[in-house]
Amino acid sequence: MRVPSDLLSFIKQEDNFLIATHINPDGDALGSALALMFALESTGKKVMVFDRDKVPDFYRFLPGQERIIHLLNKSEVNSKNIILVDCNNLERTGLDNFIFRKTCVIDHHETEKNFGEIKWIAPEIAATGILIYHLLKHLEIKITPEIATNLYTAIVIDTGAFRYANTNADVLRISAQLVDAGANPAYISSNLYEMWSDGRFRLLIKVLNTLEIRDKIALVFVTEKMFEETGTSHDDTENFANFPRMMANIKVSILLRQLDNETWKISLRSKGDVNVAKVASLFDGGGHKNAAGCRIKGSIDDVKNKLVETLYRTLEI
Amino acid sequence: MRVPSDLLSFIKQEDNFLIATHINPDGDALGSALALMFALESTGKKVMVFDRDKVPDFYRFLPGQERIIHLLNKSEVNSKNIILVDCNNLERTGLDNFIFRKTCVIDHHETEKNFGEIKWIAPEIAATGILIYHLLKHLEIKITPEIATNLYTAIVIDTGAFRYANTNADVLRISAQLVDAGANPAYISSNLYEMWSDGRFRLLIKVLNTLEIRDKIALVFVTEKMFEETGTSHDDTENFANFPRMMANIKVSILLRQLDNETWKISLRSKGDVNVAKVASLFDGGGHKNAAGCRIKGSIDDVKNKLVETLYRTLEI
Repeated sequence: MRVPSDLLSFIKQEDNFLIATHINPDGDALGSALALMFALESTGKKVMVFDRDKVPDFYRFLPGQERIIHLLNKSEVNSKNIILVDCNNLERTGLDNFIFRKTCVIDHHETEKNFGEIKWIAPEIAATGILIYHLLKHLEIKITPEIATNLYTAIVIDTGAFRYANTNADVLRISAQLVDAGANPAYISSNLYEMWSDGRFRLLIKVLNTLEIRDKIALVFVTEKMFEETGTSHDDTENFANFPRMMANIKVSILLRQLDNETWKISLRSKGDVNVAKVASLFDGGGHKNAAGCRIKGSIDDVKNKLVETLYRTLEI
Repeated sequence: MRVPSDLLSFIKQEDNFLIATHINPDGDALGSALALMFALESTGKKVMVFDRDKVPDFYRFLPGQERIIHLLNKSEVNSKNIILVDCNNLERTGLDNFIFRKTCVIDHHETEKNFGEIKWIAPEIAATGILIYHLLKHLEIKITPEIATNLYTAIVIDTGAFRYANTNADVLRISAQLVDAGANPAYISSNLYEMWSDGRFRLLIKVLNTLEIRDKIALVFVTEKMFEETGTSHDDTENFANFPRMMANIKVSILLRQLDNETWKISLRSKGDVNVAKVASLFDGGGHKNAAGCRIKGSIDDVKNKLVETLYRTLEI
């Protein structure tokens, strides 16, 4: 894969980098940022990694995660070059209005804003971690076990553990190279998927008990009371919206999370060509075709009805 | 990988093959058998595939599955060469006491009995499908999309979708080759993991509601009544035993299935070095280190107590 030459010279010539990624970081964001940190440091560069939000518990096994900083002063960054990974505008990092020496973006999301003097944006690529892999290959930087673990995690998360449509032969071949370089698939998967607290598992059961099926739409919800009863928090519902997708008949799966007495945070998941981002945007939300979100005020029943109606009106399900 | 030369000559010289695999077939059994069928036929050989049991619904997408026969007369097979795939003794196929021309085994399970004039048994390999892949490469047989889909499925099933400890760089590299040859990862995964009936999903919820945690052991059970209420059958509990393994604290997960008023079929799943096959064998059952089973008679509470006691007495948990 071709890597932009201005990106290669930028990294070779500059010395002082701030790597930043998006708020609510996922495995591709964290893995890509940390892999790039280790790689640049191995060539003697000065590197800092920033994410506004804390690292979710199940990513605490990522080598280097303890070095991520969550607070920055404007004065600290003037002389630094910023590299955004897995996002392409400053607002998504929580660093808007900061001024940097040079600005660079490495991402696989569609561009929304015009940020970055040096840009490598490849929406056709499954994970930003794959871009980082190609970058390191071009820079002839050795992929250490720490780098490999971070990049393999990035790929696993953004391909749904090799299940999504973005899983192609290159994804598998690069993953094989990362295993050769020291990534351990079983160790990584077990950290990502088998480290639930008992409370989180009990919360899942409570949520599944709320299942309602309306033709091709499945709805589940979680209330503040359920969080209290299980000693859990909003972070613990990560991935819950995907469970009802296991059913063959279900085209859209919806998780409603209670934020306060009458506000619900909605996660929409769909299969194939069913574009739930279109529906989310009608409620001032957003996202991707198969995974989107929004917020709606009202009683649980009103919110459910509104969502189901809008889904059937807007989409061909 | 080296393929035994007597296996290569056997396949080149002989013409009339019966490929058989184990009862209660899984994706590695079916995928390996069907891939080998297509491959041998492409070189002009006569091939029949046998499995005593019906193909589970979620494997109905496998190319060629409709050609599997489930009944055989002894007289039909005298002139045929049998190739056992994914098992290494005739009893496991339901064909014991049949007589064949020559006998051959291709498997990755530990050998229990001495069957097969020609044998290729490689317990260190993640899936029998990988052995078939190497065999086809050595025979210079073109891997068609039908073959690739069957072999990719074999690998996905026996590596737990690239999550188990048997997932290494070769597994990923061969999977990449299969995708190049026409296997579609998202199509295969969606058929394997997103084709549940509504009833099966409702059964899962009922089963999870029975969750009991005794220190590091999780127990769930399913009764005849639950099958009735959801219109499901024993096949539908496939993989249910694995769900409680998501909890970090759980070392052993147990599913108890009611066979009749007082007989329970037990599935044991464990993590890491916890060897549940040892415990299953104490109840005249068997299996692998991390996945084993047995049958126990008694009331649900007695059976649970017996199991938990035996687990703590026998294993270091």
